[in-house]
Amino acid sequence: MGAWSFLTQTMRSLWLLLIPCLSLSLAPFVQTEKGLEFPRYDGNDRVIDINDKNYKKAMKKYSILCLLYHKPIPDGKELQKQHQMTEMVLELAAQVMEEKEIGFGMVDSHEDVKVAKKLGLVEEGSVYVFKGDRVIEFDGLLSADTLVEFLLDLLEEPVEVIGNTLELRAFDRMEEDIRLIGYFKNDESEYYHEFKEAAEQFQPYIRFFATFEKSVAKELTLKMNEVDFYEPFMEEPVTVPDRPNSEEEIVAFVTEHRRPTLRKLRAEDMFETWEIQLTSQGLIKHRRTFLLRCSDGYEFLELLKEVARDNTHHPGLSIIWIDPDDFPLLIPYWEKTFHVDLFKPQIGVVNVTDADSIWLEIDEQDLPTAQELEDWIEDVLSGKVNTEDDDDDNDDDDEDDDDKDDKSDKKL
Amino acid sequence: MGAWSFLTQTMRSLWLLLIPCLSLSLAPFVQTEKGLEFPRYDGNDRVIDINDKNYKKAMKKYSILCLLYHKPIPDGKELQKQHQMTEMVLELAAQVMEEKEIGFGMVDSHEDVKVAKKLGLVEEGSVYVFKGDRVIEFDGLLSADTLVEFLLDLLEEPVEVIGNTLELRAFDRMEEDIRLIGYFKNDESEYYHEFKEAAEQFQPYIRFFATFEKSVAKELTLKMNEVDFYEPFMEEPVTVPDRPNSEEEIVAFVTEHRRPTLRKLRAEDMFETWEIQLTSQGLIKHRRTFLLRCSDGYEFLELLKEVARDNTHHPGLSIIWIDPDDFPLLIPYWEKTFHVDLFKPQIGVVNVTDADSIWLEIDEQDLPTAQELEDWIEDVLSGKVNTEDDDDDNDDDDEDDDDKDDKSDKKL
Repeated sequence: MGAWSFLTQTMRSLWLLLIPCLSLSLAPFVQTEKGLEFPRYDGNDRVIDINDKNYKKAMKKYSILCLLYHKPIPDGKELQKQHQMTEMVLELAAQVMEEKEIGFGMVDSHEDVKVAKKLGLVEEGSVYVFKGDRVIEFDGLLSADTLVEFLLDLLEEPVEVIGNTLELRAFDRMEEDIRLIGYFKNDESEYYHEFKEAAEQFQPYIRFFATFEKSVAKELTLKMNEVDFYEPFMEEPVTVPDRPNSEEEIVAFVTEHRRPTLRKLRAEDMFETWEIQLTSQGLIKHRRTFLLRCSDGYEFLELLKEVARDNTHHPGLSIIWIDPDDFPLLIPYWEKTFHVDLFKPQIGVVNVTDADSIWLEIDEQDLPTAQELEDWIEDVLSGKVNTEDDDDDNDDDDEDDDDKDDKSDKKL
Repeated sequence: MGAWSFLTQTMRSLWLLLIPCLSLSLAPFVQTEKGLEFPRYDGNDRVIDINDKNYKKAMKKYSILCLLYHKPIPDGKELQKQHQMTEMVLELAAQVMEEKEIGFGMVDSHEDVKVAKKLGLVEEGSVYVFKGDRVIEFDGLLSADTLVEFLLDLLEEPVEVIGNTLELRAFDRMEEDIRLIGYFKNDESEYYHEFKEAAEQFQPYIRFFATFEKSVAKELTLKMNEVDFYEPFMEEPVTVPDRPNSEEEIVAFVTEHRRPTLRKLRAEDMFETWEIQLTSQGLIKHRRTFLLRCSDGYEFLELLKEVARDNTHHPGLSIIWIDPDDFPLLIPYWEKTFHVDLFKPQIGVVNVTDADSIWLEIDEQDLPTAQELEDWIEDVLSGKVNTEDDDDDNDDDDEDDDDKDDKSDKKL
């Protein structure tokens, strides 16, 4: 099971072979026929309005319970619609996950103060996932897709077992993920048990793998009861010291090393990714943000990996790679906020507290070299490159635009 | 511009370098700070209720107008909620695309019969996109993400210009897409103009590229005014005969050859992909569906490519590759509908009219070989492998489940 959850997580694929035969159906395929109907909200209420009376029952009923901790439902029509949209995201997720015995509820931060306190809900707008005696804060984008993917990952085994070299090759291709792998005698091993306990602390954000196969361990140069930690996009893993390791040792090591130099932003943990930036320095930090739109993602990723590997020791350096195609809704927003044409390559520094930004001039035919990039990153780190724009202007712009467009819509 | 739209479509990437400095902010990053706020519906109505009086005004006002042609708003509370959800998808898309002067509206198939007839809206539930004198039916998944991505693609140049070998390498990596590329003297060329006119007929579903560089044309072995057609996952392109080609010749060729042997299912054109299956045989066909869940997507894709290349001449063969991670909402649905454990590798044939399915036993450690797969595909094509299950049972199961869960929810 461990093995298959691993395989599905990493390499699910479906193949559909379409063979023509006679039929009378004229309607488009997916909308009308069976086997590929896309789930659409059926309008049934599944999300529970959690209160003092029913929360214990809900906890018992479901193997996993997801609670949205939200501000009181506002009076304004606009804000009510906004709240409704959030509610419907939960309803669709609840409908889709019904078969999996996963429950969904909403906790009002004013009406249900007691329950919130009992359950330890603190951050308004967050989804808290209760699984056994664990509480996991969902730090991803609040969309049905993202929430369901997160919960499916949470349903899988905390440790994914690699049984052969085919699976090992798949492990090698996961360079975007933070991951650990350990070699143990078998699934009875007490050290494997400790490793598994540690894995549960980080599931599904950080991926834990194990092998019981000598041949696999050999390829990974893992000794018995040894655990390696892989930072995203780095070639060599770091070994957790003083094997065999206890749950506490592994948890402590991961907590210390989890902040990567180069990381890809994913919808399922985008907020968590940022929070790492907040806490990794031990202090709450303000971050200046370097933003780059490059004419060739592929070549440029190779370049960035180089720079990241050379500078992975630098405690201040943390690069987040964003593929805008993963966030289409943000593309117009970025173009507007940064006043740049994303149809041209852009390199810039953005101050994330006020969206001030500064942009480098690039020759469209000629990308920066690794050295040029490294020099510039140095200038950003040293503060030589920084932003000066006035953020209030941008805000005003936005509001003006909205007002204007509202009126003109109403005119129709 | 053509070049950059090409680059952004294929290789957009953003890089964020986070540098710790002092700050007092304690709140999570993306939700509170500037530059990465995720667009959330602001509750303002932007979607226009289109009627006899206002549709001309709307057409004039926007460079692109998207109209959802929908059934009358139903009475039942459940169905109204369902309709509301669809409406909110449009509202969020309208909010995000406001800056781009793209308008959104809804046309009621009963109240607005006249308008619908004037505009040629026929299929309830479809979104019709009006751009200049073109009407494009949006055949993707009706989610804000997917619709916005589709519209952004539609805003780009119909032909993307490849100016150097760096861009050519990116073109080479696009094996998943149906694409054409032509070599022309310059952007004044009448044949380039014909090519561009043809491109507009298929934008954004099929991608058109052009080069004016001798060096690029040489690498592609393109003669002057020659156009090559690339089928997804095939190594060699097919050349459009009798160059130089008119718009009509290119349109006819693409229409005839667009149905691929192997294609990846994408949210932005999933319905269109199926409709190709419906029409490619000249007749409306009923399709039996072959579905495979394989333990290693990567190795297996290589295998499938082989089989597809060997059998690309077979008119009856059309394989759709689905990466379930692209459709998380469908994973529980597939598990339920096909009664299979997607945590194990599965190979089966599915009858798409009633979701009957039949599954092969596979040894978990041992994938089928290309030959075994080819033999089996032959058996499916010949009808030796087919489905016999009774679909009514499945339906009943589903309904029962829903009822059960509804009741138990209400109990709370």
